[in-house]
Amino acid sequence: MMKIYKKAILPNSFEASGIASGIKKSGKLDLALFYTWSPAIVSCKFTKNTILAAPIKLNKSYLKKNKFFHAVIVNSGNANCFTGKKGLKDAQDITRFAADPLFCNKEDILVASTGIIGRRLSVEKIKRAIPGLVAGMSWKNERGIDRAKKAIMTTDTFAKEISVKFRIGKETVTVCGIAKGAGMIAPNMATMLAFILTDANITQRALDKALDIAVEDSFNCITVDGCMSTNDSVIVLANDAAGNDTIKPNKHFNLFTRALNIVCLELAKMIVKDAEGATKFIRIRVDKAKGFAQARKVALCIANSNLLKCAVYAENPNFGRIAAAVGASGVDVKEEDLKIKVSLLNKKEIYICVSINRGKYCATVYTSDLTPEYIKINAEYS
Amino acid sequence: MMKIYKKAILPNSFEASGIASGIKKSGKLDLALFYTWSPAIVSCKFTKNTILAAPIKLNKSYLKKNKFFHAVIVNSGNANCFTGKKGLKDAQDITRFAADPLFCNKEDILVASTGIIGRRLSVEKIKRAIPGLVAGMSWKNERGIDRAKKAIMTTDTFAKEISVKFRIGKETVTVCGIAKGAGMIAPNMATMLAFILTDANITQRALDKALDIAVEDSFNCITVDGCMSTNDSVIVLANDAAGNDTIKPNKHFNLFTRALNIVCLELAKMIVKDAEGATKFIRIRVDKAKGFAQARKVALCIANSNLLKCAVYAENPNFGRIAAAVGASGVDVKEEDLKIKVSLLNKKEIYICVSINRGKYCATVYTSDLTPEYIKINAEYS
Repeated sequence: MMKIYKKAILPNSFEASGIASGIKKSGKLDLALFYTWSPAIVSCKFTKNTILAAPIKLNKSYLKKNKFFHAVIVNSGNANCFTGKKGLKDAQDITRFAADPLFCNKEDILVASTGIIGRRLSVEKIKRAIPGLVAGMSWKNERGIDRAKKAIMTTDTFAKEISVKFRIGKETVTVCGIAKGAGMIAPNMATMLAFILTDANITQRALDKALDIAVEDSFNCITVDGCMSTNDSVIVLANDAAGNDTIKPNKHFNLFTRALNIVCLELAKMIVKDAEGATKFIRIRVDKAKGFAQARKVALCIANSNLLKCAVYAENPNFGRIAAAVGASGVDVKEEDLKIKVSLLNKKEIYICVSINRGKYCATVYTSDLTPEYIKINAEYS
Repeated sequence: MMKIYKKAILPNSFEASGIASGIKKSGKLDLALFYTWSPAIVSCKFTKNTILAAPIKLNKSYLKKNKFFHAVIVNSGNANCFTGKKGLKDAQDITRFAADPLFCNKEDILVASTGIIGRRLSVEKIKRAIPGLVAGMSWKNERGIDRAKKAIMTTDTFAKEISVKFRIGKETVTVCGIAKGAGMIAPNMATMLAFILTDANITQRALDKALDIAVEDSFNCITVDGCMSTNDSVIVLANDAAGNDTIKPNKHFNLFTRALNIVCLELAKMIVKDAEGATKFIRIRVDKAKGFAQARKVALCIANSNLLKCAVYAENPNFGRIAAAVGASGVDVKEEDLKIKVSLLNKKEIYICVSINRGKYCATVYTSDLTPEYIKINAEYS
């Protein structure tokens, strides 16, 4: 009873908008708004990088003070990171300028930024663009969400979007996800950002728990170059506009978690598929581990091996590189227990299965190959 | 009173030899012998990869049984790794075949291999080559050492060699180092190998301690692609042929450690300079850390950032990537405490200085840039 749509469908009471504020010199869309008329509870996951971008610092402080939120404002073209106290004030100013037009308090607005690290953000440009951004919203306006999903993109070659609908009793609940660029694939243009909008009626505890589960299996299972961004954020807003029977940790929970899992995993895979310069999509499954964490650790170690990624790019079968990466993970695997299977390398999607005979858990990690194009893109950007 | 020579000079009572056994299909030199007439004590450092190559397993078992050694036999072209019990027997067979011609027991011989992972080594070819290898030695024969240093090379473009001479009383002590290819730069052709020969009279405890110190500051401070090889080995032989007053942890120790440090650090730097496809040599110094380990952790995290390596390749100054890598190290650095200095990027040698205001320790790490040539070499090899 779960329907999956390969595009963003706004849940009840949500709106979106996108505009070109001038931060991107190209004149492309660079400012997005996700808005909910009904106040929404929020659950977030932020990067574990100890150097945090200003918007993440601001969000953390608002999340401490506040329980319900109305909007997320996102800019691309500048990460507002490594910008000190001025950067933090800039992020706050965005929420201050938008509060009145959005009929809410500044603390009801979350922010996100993606782009170049270490340069001041032009808040003036954003200030001037806010009226147009707000005016661009209109109830269920498809153009609004289409512009929003483009406005969060940097070096992405396609928008990442997915929606899942399911029923609780007679009510239809929608979970809609929009994301941009993978981790630090796009280094100057740092940041993986994902925004998930749902009209579910759900308790805070259930939402937090569901997001914990979904992120572990999706965003925490992808890697492109092993670089951890300063801006990575996953933000979920649940505004209770579907009118369903409340989802709690012990009620309707599996149904909601399944929908959220699908949204997160599909977005995560799209991010890897759009990795800079990538020609291959690689699934690495590690079987028979002591626990999920051990399985993922081994799989990530394989996925982050530049050598393996070069081999896959060249369609050069090389079990030795996989074995070396398994050993480098620090997990105590015996050589005689290690079994490696690799699918045909001349396909676009590659499967690598590694069995380590340590227990009964498994994990799957997604990554891309390493190509001369990746270096070209990351070398030339400035 | 320390003289440094940029070539390998065999210490007293050491000999060397190299021959083409046929393991390399190109017909190039691929089998090397380092021999000492006087029995030598040995100190070793092996890879921490949990998948160990057969020669490392064999060496570990011999080092448990035995205190004095006469020889190291090294082959290139095949890593004898991920080859199971047969591979271990192959390694042992090499020492068995060489024992008689070398006037010693098989347990007096250490072995090392470098090359493709996961394929059986042709021990028959080595067996047939051993008489010629032994015959190729001759007292202080420069050609012997020249052939040996070439025979351990795989994708290296130049031989890594250095010698240091110093005096204890009236006696001259020589420390001579020979190394090959950096870490997993040359993936199929895995392995960083370093052989250090000295005629010093030194206690086992002092030798172990000196090697601990030297390796921490040199081989453990270089990275090319963050990949840990299954074959990495540093082997030091000290044969007491210089006749010097015994070096102990509390006597002449600093002098010997300084010489060993120079040898290890110069070899480590040469390895990075010869990294596959590299166009830049990057020194990363992290200052004001809580301890050496913290400083090195941050420096290695910067050095392993593909993004930074691409930026340096393109001479694209980008402090943001460095800040992101510092934060990703997991070390709790405050943004306002982080100071970053980068030298001009249009030079061949790049200096990056990062100060984190956490204490008074520093560490320097060496790495190379990431280039399309690296991918080409690692993609095309088979």
